[in-house]
Amino acid sequence: MELRLIEAKFPTFSNNVCSITKFHSSFISVHSYPKSYSNKVMCSRAPESTTDSKGNSSTLLLQRPFMSRFTGLNGALSSLFFTETRTLDYFDDEYGGVIINSDKLPTNPNDFASLLQSSLSHWKIKGKKGIWLKLPSERAELVPVAVKGGFQYHHAEQGYVMLTYWIPEGPCMLPANASHQVGVGGFVINEKNEVLVVQEKYCAPPFVGFWKIPTGFIHESEEIFTGAVREVKEETGIDTEFTEVIAFRHAQNMAFEKSDLFFICILKPLSTGIKVDDHEIEAAKWMPLVEFVEQPWIQDDSMFKKVTDIFIAKMGKKYCGLHAHHLISKFDDRSSTLYYNVVKTEHDSSNCKGSY
Amino acid sequence: MELRLIEAKFPTFSNNVCSITKFHSSFISVHSYPKSYSNKVMCSRAPESTTDSKGNSSTLLLQRPFMSRFTGLNGALSSLFFTETRTLDYFDDEYGGVIINSDKLPTNPNDFASLLQSSLSHWKIKGKKGIWLKLPSERAELVPVAVKGGFQYHHAEQGYVMLTYWIPEGPCMLPANASHQVGVGGFVINEKNEVLVVQEKYCAPPFVGFWKIPTGFIHESEEIFTGAVREVKEETGIDTEFTEVIAFRHAQNMAFEKSDLFFICILKPLSTGIKVDDHEIEAAKWMPLVEFVEQPWIQDDSMFKKVTDIFIAKMGKKYCGLHAHHLISKFDDRSSTLYYNVVKTEHDSSNCKGSY
Repeated sequence: MELRLIEAKFPTFSNNVCSITKFHSSFISVHSYPKSYSNKVMCSRAPESTTDSKGNSSTLLLQRPFMSRFTGLNGALSSLFFTETRTLDYFDDEYGGVIINSDKLPTNPNDFASLLQSSLSHWKIKGKKGIWLKLPSERAELVPVAVKGGFQYHHAEQGYVMLTYWIPEGPCMLPANASHQVGVGGFVINEKNEVLVVQEKYCAPPFVGFWKIPTGFIHESEEIFTGAVREVKEETGIDTEFTEVIAFRHAQNMAFEKSDLFFICILKPLSTGIKVDDHEIEAAKWMPLVEFVEQPWIQDDSMFKKVTDIFIAKMGKKYCGLHAHHLISKFDDRSSTLYYNVVKTEHDSSNCKGSY
Repeated sequence: MELRLIEAKFPTFSNNVCSITKFHSSFISVHSYPKSYSNKVMCSRAPESTTDSKGNSSTLLLQRPFMSRFTGLNGALSSLFFTETRTLDYFDDEYGGVIINSDKLPTNPNDFASLLQSSLSHWKIKGKKGIWLKLPSERAELVPVAVKGGFQYHHAEQGYVMLTYWIPEGPCMLPANASHQVGVGGFVINEKNEVLVVQEKYCAPPFVGFWKIPTGFIHESEEIFTGAVREVKEETGIDTEFTEVIAFRHAQNMAFEKSDLFFICILKPLSTGIKVDDHEIEAAKWMPLVEFVEQPWIQDDSMFKKVTDIFIAKMGKKYCGLHAHHLISKFDDRSSTLYYNVVKTEHDSSNCKGSY
């Protein structure tokens, strides 16, 4: 239940604009917005709404308190004070916002348009803030209706687009979309002091023919250390064991205007026989470390030279990277990985523990 | 020009599924897909297409080579071999794909539907792979048409939705959307051994009343070290200087099913007077280190305890974090930041350089 509470909240409190969020609600990264919008445990049903068989909700508006005062009056007069407003089916979120129920959207776009407007009016009266509308691909006909109704795209994934509407005046405080891609590169060196290198089949012209370490993006929901091991295995067939992250690069405005974090890892080989992935790798081999380092494209480039220097320092036990440790915080009951260096003891002022 | 070439390419070569990409084309993170789809330097105009005043392109199909062989035949017969196919205006990308020109979409959705189908037929014949369609909000009426035509959502940002169509049989090889949010937390300690702490105004119930370090998400296109300094300034009014990253946490399946990377930074205070951000911070103060560490919510939690231990080790010069270094790779002419530890020299086996 504690986990649900933490995950159930939407952030709407900040002085930032819509593309910027700041709601790390704890010491380290305990988020306060929902894991999934289709997961109904994250939010409570609007207590005052009821749903008919067509999926529309009826909401008794502010006039309800007057009802008893006008008992016995004719219908016309009564309706002035007791108005039933039809809204889309929705859930309240815990940050004063609303999540429209994607499972109960009207079948007719005109009905949707009409209900969307009356719903927005209702939510404005109720002082709601951020409105979330997730439209699955099969309801794409409602996208232009929502946009016409003032909704903005928030993010999309294969299968759905998420739109939002910010009711209060002032900047939108809803959380931003994901901002980074995460890549990994794996230095694998064997007992003969040979580095595992590949030539990519399809790469940008400046890199054609270069012998480089295996690299790639980590999968969604994949650990950095798992991604590095997987990439090496996929490209070369070599089994490895993750040792540590020795450095990472942060670059801006890469694909789709997003940023990029690239983690350079040290991996320990567990096998020797190379099997190249024909789809993307032209060739792979074990290359003597000296030969690898002396490649002009490394020696002539400040970035690649520095990374190689760090790798050599690591080999010479003159460098400490960050090791991966599984930890669970009791506050969100989430198993995550904390990467950190070796904390030296009184009697340990020399080198890193673990790894090579 | 070199930069353009590197950025101009779409990756379509991989044995992964659509949500997975692997096209780090170099040693470290030189991407091979475009920075922006609206940036036309990234791709070349399809050489065989011409555009009329309505923004539609005419493309001479495969039959063109037969033209001279049937000169003099009647129109009906000639049309069997010389067919003019109208397509949407588009650009080729360098990975065998196509980018539909968002600036020249037909005004009428029915025309768009018809042209989209004939275009897809044309691109299939030409052996094209990934098709990219960016629809700005003001053309939202075309979204259902594209989805009906087989396009899938790829990603969306405020102002547009990007859809894709993968022509070849087999898994889609187009690059995935951004996968991570990036947060920062700043340890700031003054000369009196006091830590800068805040109480958040709006946080999940388990954290109410906790004194914690300032945290937040980094902005799009913001450096980690800049984001940490900004967050501390915004929440407390204290000016700081970034020293190093001492650890980072990687957590899966956070907001919108995306992952989260949280970097714990050490910052050096440059001012002392606290000015609380009323929008999101309840209170801020300088708290004696011992008092901060002894808080039950830190002592009782493995994650927060470990991070605090690392911080204390750092204060005691028994820990080395990663420092930020600007580096430019000549291969992409891009200024990025490489975070790495101190490389020890022959005569330096003791502690970290720089920082505290």
